[in-house]
Amino acid sequence: MSRDLKAKNLDLETGANIILVNERDAALLNIHPGDRLNAIDGSRSAIAIANITDIVPNGIAGVTKNLKDELRARNGDKIELAPAEQPKSLVAIKEKINGKRLGYEEFYEIVKDGLNKRLNNDELTAFVVALSIYGLDLEEAEYLSNAMINTGERLDLGKKRVYDKHSIGGVPGDKTSLLVVPIVASAGLTIPKTSSRAITSAAGTADRAEVLMPVTLSTSEMRRIVNKTNGCLVWGGAVHLAPADDMFIKIEYPLSIDPLLLPSIMSKKRAVGSTDLVLDIPTGETAKIKTREEASLLVKDFITLGERMHISIRGAVTNGQQPIGNAIGAAAEAQEALAVLERKREVPDVVDKVASIAGILIEMSGRKGGKSIAENIIRRGIAEKKLRQIIAEQGGDEKIRSEDIRLGEHSVSVAARNSGRVLSIDNIALAYTTRLAGAPLMKSASIIMHKKLGAEVRKGEPLFTIYSDSAPKLAAAEKYALTSDPVLVASGSKMLLKEIYEKRFAPRRFVLER
Amino acid sequence: MSRDLKAKNLDLETGANIILVNERDAALLNIHPGDRLNAIDGSRSAIAIANITDIVPNGIAGVTKNLKDELRARNGDKIELAPAEQPKSLVAIKEKINGKRLGYEEFYEIVKDGLNKRLNNDELTAFVVALSIYGLDLEEAEYLSNAMINTGERLDLGKKRVYDKHSIGGVPGDKTSLLVVPIVASAGLTIPKTSSRAITSAAGTADRAEVLMPVTLSTSEMRRIVNKTNGCLVWGGAVHLAPADDMFIKIEYPLSIDPLLLPSIMSKKRAVGSTDLVLDIPTGETAKIKTREEASLLVKDFITLGERMHISIRGAVTNGQQPIGNAIGAAAEAQEALAVLERKREVPDVVDKVASIAGILIEMSGRKGGKSIAENIIRRGIAEKKLRQIIAEQGGDEKIRSEDIRLGEHSVSVAARNSGRVLSIDNIALAYTTRLAGAPLMKSASIIMHKKLGAEVRKGEPLFTIYSDSAPKLAAAEKYALTSDPVLVASGSKMLLKEIYEKRFAPRRFVLER
Repeated sequence: MSRDLKAKNLDLETGANIILVNERDAALLNIHPGDRLNAIDGSRSAIAIANITDIVPNGIAGVTKNLKDELRARNGDKIELAPAEQPKSLVAIKEKINGKRLGYEEFYEIVKDGLNKRLNNDELTAFVVALSIYGLDLEEAEYLSNAMINTGERLDLGKKRVYDKHSIGGVPGDKTSLLVVPIVASAGLTIPKTSSRAITSAAGTADRAEVLMPVTLSTSEMRRIVNKTNGCLVWGGAVHLAPADDMFIKIEYPLSIDPLLLPSIMSKKRAVGSTDLVLDIPTGETAKIKTREEASLLVKDFITLGERMHISIRGAVTNGQQPIGNAIGAAAEAQEALAVLERKREVPDVVDKVASIAGILIEMSGRKGGKSIAENIIRRGIAEKKLRQIIAEQGGDEKIRSEDIRLGEHSVSVAARNSGRVLSIDNIALAYTTRLAGAPLMKSASIIMHKKLGAEVRKGEPLFTIYSDSAPKLAAAEKYALTSDPVLVASGSKMLLKEIYEKRFAPRRFVLER
Repeated sequence: MSRDLKAKNLDLETGANIILVNERDAALLNIHPGDRLNAIDGSRSAIAIANITDIVPNGIAGVTKNLKDELRARNGDKIELAPAEQPKSLVAIKEKINGKRLGYEEFYEIVKDGLNKRLNNDELTAFVVALSIYGLDLEEAEYLSNAMINTGERLDLGKKRVYDKHSIGGVPGDKTSLLVVPIVASAGLTIPKTSSRAITSAAGTADRAEVLMPVTLSTSEMRRIVNKTNGCLVWGGAVHLAPADDMFIKIEYPLSIDPLLLPSIMSKKRAVGSTDLVLDIPTGETAKIKTREEASLLVKDFITLGERMHISIRGAVTNGQQPIGNAIGAAAEAQEALAVLERKREVPDVVDKVASIAGILIEMSGRKGGKSIAENIIRRGIAEKKLRQIIAEQGGDEKIRSEDIRLGEHSVSVAARNSGRVLSIDNIALAYTTRLAGAPLMKSASIIMHKKLGAEVRKGEPLFTIYSDSAPKLAAAEKYALTSDPVLVASGSKMLLKEIYEKRFAPRRFVLER
C-alpha cells in the first residue's frame, strides 16, 4: 500500500502541504486528487494533500515549500506515501454541500484546518459557496462566530461593559468611527475599536485613522491605550482577533459573495469583549444595502444573534444615498473628520450621523439625551482633545492640524454637462474613481464633492474634484468618471434613468466591506 | 492604470494562465485575486488570472508555464498589466451561485473556458458546488449536455438508428457491456459503445475490454470498426467526445458530489449519435442507487431529457445487492464474460442480466421476444463469434480463450467465521478490497466469490479469494477484508445488523462511476 518516490523540492509556496504526483504513480498508488497522504521521509512524516499532475515525471514526488519544511526533505530523498484519514473538516464540508446543518465542533474543525492550511483552496471555496447558497441559520452563525473567536486571540479589558460601533459599509466618505470613538470615550465609555482596511472601497477606517496615527498595534498595546484613554482606533488585521476572517474574504471576493457577514462581524466584536454594539446600516440604491426593508431584516438577524452571544445590539439604518460629508479617500476623510472636531468646518450630515450613533451608545449606558450629549462633546472641543490623546498614545503627532493633511498634488474637476438638480449619486462609481486615482494604497488619492443630492447646478459648474499624486492615475480616474457619470444632474421631471442596451452578461456590482 | 513589473518564469504548470503578483504590487495596481489582467510583453499579450502571493518579491511578475508560452516571456522582460474584462463564463458562474437559471450560451461559455483553462480551479469548483446544491432542471441539463457535446468531437455513422446501453454503475463485477455489445451487434443493430475506466470501482468496462483487445482508438478507427462489425468496445477517454466530462470529474471526486450525472451520460451518448438507449440502474443498499424509488425517479429524468435530446430511453432497474457473477477485477471479469460466451461456465445471473438488457434493445428495434433472441444468440455461439470479430478489428488476438487469462499470482481466501447463510454483501468493501490488491491498474488483481446471497455456509468455508501479483498489496487487501467483513454470514433470524459507536464524523461512502 505504500511505494517510494524520490523527493524533488519545488520552489513553490502553496500555503497548504501539497504533494505533486504523476498520473501513473497516482494510479499505481490508488491516489486521487485531494486525497490525504501520510508522507514519510526517513524519521519525519507529515500529512500532505495529493495533487495529480504531469509536471512531475514518474517516480518523483514534487514537494512544496510548507511540506519541505515539515519533512526537511532534500532532493532525492525517498518519500513513502501511505493513505491518511480524511480530516473531519473535509467530511463536514462535504456534509454542508449536501445540505446538512453543522454543529460547533464541525465549524471549528473547518476554521482551524483552514487557518493551518490543512484544507486546500478548492475545499474552502466549496464551503463558502455552500454557505452562500444555503445561508446560515442563527444557530450555525453562532457556532461559526464562536469557531472564529476560538481560533484567534482575545482582548480582555476586565470591564463590565464594553461599547462598540460597526458599519456594514458600502457608502463612500464614511468617516463616522473617527469621530464616534473620541466622543464615546469622552463620555466615559470603553470603546476598543478595531477596523479594517479597504477591500473594494476607497478607504477603510484603518486607512483613514492611519493618516493621523499608527494603527498597526498589538493586542497588548491596544489594552494599554484603552485603559488610559477609553478608546483606540486600531487596524484589525494586525491584532490576531478572529484571523479566519481574512482567509474567508480571500475566497469570497473573487466570487462576489459574502455569506460570512454576520459571523465575521460578531466574532470580531466578541473577541474584543464588546457587550453593547450599534450597527450602522447605510441604505441606498448604490450602497451595500439597497432598501430599508432589507436593512431591517439584517438588523433583526444581528439582534437575535447578539442575544445568543450576549451582545446587546441596536441597529441604525442611516441614509446611504450619497457620500457622507464631502470628502472621499483616506487623507481627505481624515482631514474632514479632524476639521469637524476642530470646529473649522461645518459638515452637517457628518455631525448628525456621528452624534446620532454616539448618542445611541451613550443611551445604552443608561443616560438620557445621548445625541445632545454627543453634540455638546463636539461643540466644547472635548472630542478633539480626546482624539489627540488617542493619537498621542498610538504614537502619532497629537499636534496635527487638518490643514497639515495633504491631498494629491495633481487634481482635476469634473463639471456638470447641463443645468438642473443633482438627482442621484452613484456611490460605487465614486469609490471606483477614487481607487483608479490610487486609493486605498495612495492615501492622498481623493475626491472632494462640491454638489450633493438636491443641489442646484448650472452647466459647467464643478461637481467634484479628483486628487492624485500620479498624473496617469488621475487621467484614468477622470476618464472613468466622465464615462460613468456618478453625479446625475437633470431637471426634476426627468423620468428615464437608464437605457439598457447591453447584452445579458452584465457583472453585478459587489461591495465587500464589513 | 498600468505598471511595469519584471517577468520571472516559474517552473510551474497550473493549467490556467496564472500570473503571480506580490501583495504590495497588487495593492498599488488595484489587483485582487482572480482578477483578469491583460499581460503585455513587448508585442505579445495574453489574458492572465491574478494570483496574489508573497512568493514573488516586489516588482516581479511570476509567470506560469502556459502564460510563458503565450507571451514567449523571458526572465527580466518588462510585463505591463492592465485590467481586462471578466469572462462571461465567470459572470455566469457568479449568477449560478446566486441561484439564477443559466441558458445554453452561458453553459457553453463555462465549458469552453474551463477546457481552455480560462477559468481557475476555484471558479470551476464553485460552479460544480452550485450545481450540486441547486440541482439542474431538465432544460438546464439539456443546455449543459449540448454545451459538452459542442466542445468536443462527434461520431457520425450515417445510420438512422444507433443503439447504446449504459450502466450508471456502482456494483462490482458488472461485465454486462462485454456481452451485450456482441449480442446486439449479432442481431444486426449498430452499437458503438464507448466506456470509461474505473474511478472509484475495481474495474470499468474499458479496463475489462482491454484484457481482450486494445481500447485506445481514434474516432475514425471507431467508425471503421462499427461499419464492419456493427459494434465496438472503446475507451471514451481516448476519443474526444464530450471531453469536458473528465474536467468535471476531477472536481467532483474530491468533494464526493456528482451533479453532472445526467449531462455527462447524455452528452457522451449524443456525441456518438445514439438514438435508442437502455439505461441500467443497479439498485441495492451498497450500490450507487439505494432504492427502487430512487431508481425510478432517476429513470424518469433520463427519459424526459432523452425526449428533449431525441434519444429514446428505457430504464432497466436491476438487482445490485451483490456483485454480478462471481468475478471482480478486470482480468477475472473478462475471463468470466468470455467463458460465458464460450459456454464453458454457467453464470445464471450474468446471463439473465445480459439477455434482459440486450433483449430490450432488440425490442426497441421493433422485434418481439428480445430476451429469447438474445439467449439464443449466446447459446448458438453467435455472440462469441461476434466478440472475436470485434477483438480482431480492434487489434487483439481473436483466438484468446478464457483459460489464457491470468489472475494474480498470489492469492488468499477469506473464510467464514461462523456457519449460517449469506445475509448481505457489501459492494463497496469488495471493490475497495480489489483496489487494495492492485486494481484497477493491475488488471490481474481480482476477487472470485465462492458464496453469494442466500448461500449456506459452514464455519471455515472460503467466502471469496483475493488475487494479486504483489504480495504486500495482497496482504493489505486481506487485512482490510478481514476488518470490513464484506460478506455477512449469520442465521436468518439475526436482527442486529450494525452497532454504531463511532463519533459523528463518518465519511459518506461515495461511488463516482457513470
